[in-house]
Amino acid sequence: MDLEKAKGNLLKSDLSCFFEPESIAIVGSFKEGFFGGYVVIKSLLSAGYAGQIYPINPGYKEVLGLKVYPHLSDVQKKMDLALIMINARAVPEIIRECGENGIKGIVVIADGFAERNEDGASLQDEMVETARQVGIRIIGPNTAGIVNTSNGFNPCPYEAGYYKIKRGPIAICAQTGMINPQAFYYPDLGFGVSKICDLGNKSDLNECDILEYLEEDEQTSVISMYLESIQEGQRFLECTKRVTSKKPVLVVKSGRTGAGAIASASHTGSLAVDDQIFEATCRQGGLLRLEEFRELFEVPKIFASQPLPRGNRMGIVTVTGGVAVMAIDKGAEYGLCLTDLSPQTAEMLDKIFPGTGKMPVDIGPMMAAVKDAFSLYPQMLDAVMEDENVDVLFNVLWANPIGNIIENYIRAYELLKGRYQKPLATWLYGPNSSAVRDLRLRLEDMGFPVFSKPETCIKALGLALRYSHVKEGKGWT
Amino acid sequence: MDLEKAKGNLLKSDLSCFFEPESIAIVGSFKEGFFGGYVVIKSLLSAGYAGQIYPINPGYKEVLGLKVYPHLSDVQKKMDLALIMINARAVPEIIRECGENGIKGIVVIADGFAERNEDGASLQDEMVETARQVGIRIIGPNTAGIVNTSNGFNPCPYEAGYYKIKRGPIAICAQTGMINPQAFYYPDLGFGVSKICDLGNKSDLNECDILEYLEEDEQTSVISMYLESIQEGQRFLECTKRVTSKKPVLVVKSGRTGAGAIASASHTGSLAVDDQIFEATCRQGGLLRLEEFRELFEVPKIFASQPLPRGNRMGIVTVTGGVAVMAIDKGAEYGLCLTDLSPQTAEMLDKIFPGTGKMPVDIGPMMAAVKDAFSLYPQMLDAVMEDENVDVLFNVLWANPIGNIIENYIRAYELLKGRYQKPLATWLYGPNSSAVRDLRLRLEDMGFPVFSKPETCIKALGLALRYSHVKEGKGWT
Repeated sequence: MDLEKAKGNLLKSDLSCFFEPESIAIVGSFKEGFFGGYVVIKSLLSAGYAGQIYPINPGYKEVLGLKVYPHLSDVQKKMDLALIMINARAVPEIIRECGENGIKGIVVIADGFAERNEDGASLQDEMVETARQVGIRIIGPNTAGIVNTSNGFNPCPYEAGYYKIKRGPIAICAQTGMINPQAFYYPDLGFGVSKICDLGNKSDLNECDILEYLEEDEQTSVISMYLESIQEGQRFLECTKRVTSKKPVLVVKSGRTGAGAIASASHTGSLAVDDQIFEATCRQGGLLRLEEFRELFEVPKIFASQPLPRGNRMGIVTVTGGVAVMAIDKGAEYGLCLTDLSPQTAEMLDKIFPGTGKMPVDIGPMMAAVKDAFSLYPQMLDAVMEDENVDVLFNVLWANPIGNIIENYIRAYELLKGRYQKPLATWLYGPNSSAVRDLRLRLEDMGFPVFSKPETCIKALGLALRYSHVKEGKGWT
Repeated sequence: MDLEKAKGNLLKSDLSCFFEPESIAIVGSFKEGFFGGYVVIKSLLSAGYAGQIYPINPGYKEVLGLKVYPHLSDVQKKMDLALIMINARAVPEIIRECGENGIKGIVVIADGFAERNEDGASLQDEMVETARQVGIRIIGPNTAGIVNTSNGFNPCPYEAGYYKIKRGPIAICAQTGMINPQAFYYPDLGFGVSKICDLGNKSDLNECDILEYLEEDEQTSVISMYLESIQEGQRFLECTKRVTSKKPVLVVKSGRTGAGAIASASHTGSLAVDDQIFEATCRQGGLLRLEEFRELFEVPKIFASQPLPRGNRMGIVTVTGGVAVMAIDKGAEYGLCLTDLSPQTAEMLDKIFPGTGKMPVDIGPMMAAVKDAFSLYPQMLDAVMEDENVDVLFNVLWANPIGNIIENYIRAYELLKGRYQKPLATWLYGPNSSAVRDLRLRLEDMGFPVFSKPETCIKALGLALRYSHVKEGKGWT
């Protein structure tokens, strides 16, 4: 059976065997430690996975209260998915066994394939060939695996110290395990996650397959991807055009330089694509390109929680003028222009404190001059948010846990909640790290995204504007 | 007396009245709150300032155990510096009084000057004119003030909730109060601070004056600046050329775009400079340009703690391959090239675990395959650091508080400490935010800088390389 035929046998929705398996076989060692089958099972049980778990290893009888089967053939029950963490050389044979036992999908955590050397590349070819013969699809090898938060399916092979991940609309995929739970503290990510997928060496399933699955996934409304290579250029372009007409897709692409591309080959055995070609693909495909790894986790929050902007007129409310200047500079990169307040809003604000009735609205001077100034803050923020001249709002808060400052911020956001169809991005700064963190969590619980840097706020608003153009078919500006 | 004459009267070292005053008068309100004279005095006392403090206000008798004087003339003792936080309109008259009472320097916290409107601009002119007549120099107006950590001089006008700031070699100056203690949690900044200075509207003293002071300041070995404008172009160029031949100067410049420049005018009343001209000035003056505000605090750490690189050959040790690809891409922007290990090092590493003996050194596969792999880590890191083919090292650690992982990292850094004349930049990631934070603090206590993003590590190493060229007179590459 050749690849095309194998693909024909697997409808798009059949990728569900990876994310929604009713049963999973774990083939590997179950020794206690920070990596391996023991950790996978601990993670599945702790995350609340309700499917059947079949540990496979002739050297064990029981692990974490589960019976261990010597071989796959001993299970004698339906198995949807297998997770493989054994020596690379033994993988092709296990795949054959998986086929014999009706398994349709395999996640190959094991490494030592194309990323290692030529022998490994041959082994990878052999593995894929075997899988095709038996009608099995593969994620990996050399992957840290996948997560589906909607069914507690978190078979994390590395000890993360936490197991439950909040459900939410953000899907994160990558050619690296740096997006998997052991690498990032997901409980800190507001708005939650739908799916996580490390594609590893992409020996079989690649970015197009995952995009097509996520396109139809009702739990996912925004997709964030880290890529080192594109395997099927034409398919990728067609696929991204279609997916981005429905959901925003954010992408960090590395291997941009010649030296980076060589390193990428030894990381995931992949062939990098010329960066100019990739940039053109982003424009044509409506992809939103990010620059830094951390942005993969942060920027999706704007799409996960805020409506798209209807225009490019940016309002700024701040307690410090310097950040407004930086924001205006940064906004220009995305076509965001500082707005003018409407005369009514300007008059209303100037009545509260002279000088605040113009953009950027700097309430810093008022804070120093007026007793209990922060109690006036909710109505001021609301007035700016309501102003018809404001399409997007960047808000800067001084998160200082003294007096009633924080409570007035909360009052302000409660006042806004659910009332405006325009995106609001918030940056917090202040002299107390835990106060900044606490306020961030509170605001995000209320549905308002907070970003770690002012520049990221503006990038998020700017990409939201760009995506509104993509979605309207106006193309990328 | 005109400005030039006034400047002639003040030798460079006389800026010491701002940072090393033996006595300070605080003119303002002493009502308890989060802003004002009360907070200034609380901060000075808590930070351990040992000089004389003279609160001035006819409406108070005592504040925080200190006698309050009705007027400056009632003090009848030597006063080096005055800090002014009263209504803008009253400032010129107070300055005259300061002159009559022998005060040489004034920090004008008060706002409502050139940043506000034309009336404020006139008032600012009047204030400066008055000061010149009486031989007084001004920092501000519209400033959050200054800090000198070496004498506990922290007259912070906003409640920060902490007062002592660790001494160290980093000076931070800006045209915004976002660098002052109420805006940033300095205890989190490894390597400590020498001076902080918000220049405010720069009505009198500007970036050149501060640079010249810091040039001679023995407590300062690296300078970080946020600028919206340059007031004396030719002087700035000459000054930066001279200062950068001694100490690195990092700069974020905003008001880069036309819209940003207009906002800058209403923030600090300053006239922005064309960004291309500024970029050329950076190259000629040997300035190291940063892009994001947060970098002002982070990037100086490389200069505060590490030797300059002797070449551009970058080594990478990592537990995850993806970040290495990104690092190599980013390094190319600064002329950093991935090195090859020397044959001896390669052989030694490959003996420990096959495949680790090449760049980037990815110990991820070993971690998953070898029992107690982390105990082998110290000798591996040391071997790469020692390799003569490595000029700078980027190290990536998975900060997971399980087993003996963290302790092996600490052992590794202890082994390196003080033995190599090459810079090392570290990035930590992991599933536990407090473990990441704790390890960062421990490594920085040991003298090794840790950065919040991999991209910042590379930028820090890249700018260290660039500065090594500046210092050698090779110019900016």
